Amino acid sequence: MAEPLLIFPTAEYRLRVERLQRRMQAAGQDALLLTTPADVFYVTGFLTRFWESPARPWFIIVPASGRPIAVIPAIGADLMRRCWVTDIRTWDAPNPEDDGVSLLADTLAGLVPETGCIGVPMQLETHLRMPLADYARVGARIAPRRFVDATDTVQRVREVKSEAEIEKIRVICGVADRAFARVPEFSGAGRPLDLVFRDFQIALLQEGADWVSYVAGGAGPGGYGDVISPAGPQPLALGDVLMLDTGAVRDGYFCDFDRNYAIGRADDGARRAHAALFAATDTALAELRPGMTALDLHGVLTGALRAHGATPGGGRLGHGLGLTLTEWPSVTAKDDTVLREGMVLTLEPGVEIEPGKIMVHEENLVLRADGAELLSTRTQPDLPEIH
Amino acid sequence: MAEPLLIFPTAEYRLRVERLQRRMQAAGQDALLLTTPADVFYVTGFLTRFWESPARPWFIIVPASGRPIAVIPAIGADLMRRCWVTDIRTWDAPNPEDDGVSLLADTLAGLVPETGCIGVPMQLETHLRMPLADYARVGARIAPRRFVDATDTVQRVREVKSEAEIEKIRVICGVADRAFARVPEFSGAGRPLDLVFRDFQIALLQEGADWVSYVAGGAGPGGYGDVISPAGPQPLALGDVLMLDTGAVRDGYFCDFDRNYAIGRADDGARRAHAALFAATDTALAELRPGMTALDLHGVLTGALRAHGATPGGGRLGHGLGLTLTEWPSVTAKDDTVLREGMVLTLEPGVEIEPGKIMVHEENLVLRADGAELLSTRTQPDLPEIH
Repeated sequence: MAEPLLIFPTAEYRLRVERLQRRMQAAGQDALLLTTPADVFYVTGFLTRFWESPARPWFIIVPASGRPIAVIPAIGADLMRRCWVTDIRTWDAPNPEDDGVSLLADTLAGLVPETGCIGVPMQLETHLRMPLADYARVGARIAPRRFVDATDTVQRVREVKSEAEIEKIRVICGVADRAFARVPEFSGAGRPLDLVFRDFQIALLQEGADWVSYVAGGAGPGGYGDVISPAGPQPLALGDVLMLDTGAVRDGYFCDFDRNYAIGRADDGARRAHAALFAATDTALAELRPGMTALDLHGVLTGALRAHGATPGGGRLGHGLGLTLTEWPSVTAKDDTVLREGMVLTLEPGVEIEPGKIMVHEENLVLRADGAELLSTRTQPDLPEIH
Repeated sequence: MAEPLLIFPTAEYRLRVERLQRRMQAAGQDALLLTTPADVFYVTGFLTRFWESPARPWFIIVPASGRPIAVIPAIGADLMRRCWVTDIRTWDAPNPEDDGVSLLADTLAGLVPETGCIGVPMQLETHLRMPLADYARVGARIAPRRFVDATDTVQRVREVKSEAEIEKIRVICGVADRAFARVPEFSGAGRPLDLVFRDFQIALLQEGADWVSYVAGGAGPGGYGDVISPAGPQPLALGDVLMLDTGAVRDGYFCDFDRNYAIGRADDGARRAHAALFAATDTALAELRPGMTALDLHGVLTGALRAHGATPGGGRLGHGLGLTLTEWPSVTAKDDTVLREGMVLTLEPGVEIEPGKIMVHEENLVLRADGAELLSTRTQPDLPEIH
């Protein structure tokens, strides 16, 4: 039972933690406290679906130097021992009297000088996965040590992927490519949308996904109104546009892209929308370079859509991708995050076909020194028809 | 696109919110702020896998009377309009300048008197799904109004399920029953564990799960060491005990139970362990009554295991179940939560067969006035063998 379960060689984790530690030092942070599945997986290799249970908090501390320290429920000790952590401190959780508070406070106090501070991601696209009252209790116990914001420390490191990470994302993109190619097998006029969603998940598993964390989509005559609703039993009809979007997972890494299909013959509005989305994506793929900001990219996409006579619609037009379905930055008019070499991104332009009817299209890429390299297999220019 | 998407009649949501409002009044809370998928779904019917994206916070406010108010990213407005909410306020998220902070603060300030307080779940088995710094900003903006703990308000209401909820859990338990019955089709000596996990997920989808949020398990000679690790490519071998555990989802409700199988002939240790787990579960099913506490139930299970010559092992011996894979209370020696009629619970006794080798067994039930009613189909007394 004791063989290592690491997805990457230990050098990968060492490098990640050293990159974090350099940023911590520059920011004056003596330790990092990490609580979310993605942050914990990133620095330790601890990968489990057990996070689905909200019963217990899990704490990883990145000290100023050396390996992370795990302060975790005893039920996770065996698995953590097979990861890139040697200092593992456990308690029997959930404990209504003291659910890891003392153990965490003592650990932090032992690592960080009294005048020191502990970084915690606190800003946009973060949350703290532990009870708020316990966070306050730990803060009181470790005073005068202080918690400070470490969003930047974590995000600037995690957003630049290693080649090993890029390969993982390429593999799961390939899984989704193959599942999308099979959509015509189980879609068509008369087929209920909820069964299409089920069969699509089955196809993703058959093609190699470890699990399917996200499937969404929409269907409607000539376009759809919404891209986050669960599927109902209504059957697909001739003239519908069907969109399926997935975040499937392999070795802890996500893909996130979608595909559109016409059920029967595509109408002109849907065909034009798909062509505009394809062309805008082409423009962005050609123009994307390190050093641009997310808002520059937003400008490229909206400009290209308008140049093709389309009205931009939907939500943000792309985002980061990797250990979660979506990561920062956001391709919006307000996000000035600099796009750097090694970032894995989605391009997700959307157009409004008519009020209440949209089409969105998404591809996954890695940003290289000389521009975009696709990780998903580019969709075809013409909206595919399922007959 | 505008048809309602509610899983239950509106009367169900009205009743839930009225139950919350009575407890809020008793606790002196003028509003509740809810941020997690389960709490939001509970009071509004808003069900989407889009929660998988950590990019955006979502806020539901339960006022002292009347329907909940949604303060949410614009991308969710269409779906929320089809739920049990009429007052929907949106912003374009993610917005690095103000990610809903002003809108949430203004909404709370408009609902709650200056001397009032807003309940937020803060204690055991809770977390706040929004950036910590934004929570502090909202708190500063709404002062002198205060955030106070509302864990009890939410947990005492949500833990007692309606008949409609119980039916939903019964349905997804039935899905898992049928998938477990098919495990011998795709398991056996030589079959890699990761492919067994994949085929089990496929079976759950084929039998009617909307999605599969949790599959875990273990396999090893005469028992397994750990129940939360992902599956590797190692093949099952004759003499192994295989355990599969699932939290599949239908209409937003979870099952959570497991099954054990011997690969080939079961050895004596594994057979005795299974028999002890079965007998202890029988004892608990017979003795369980409203008014007992979770720790009373823990005593019943550990006593019964010891009476059958077994050593209790594994983690807690059961827990609540419903809108998440696990809910409070925890069947441990420290949880004095009173078990009440209408609670849906798991019984999850575990035994240590030898050091590093355990077996766990789980069933799902609803607590009725006169005792336990099973929701999962009782496993057989003898450890099933796969030949």
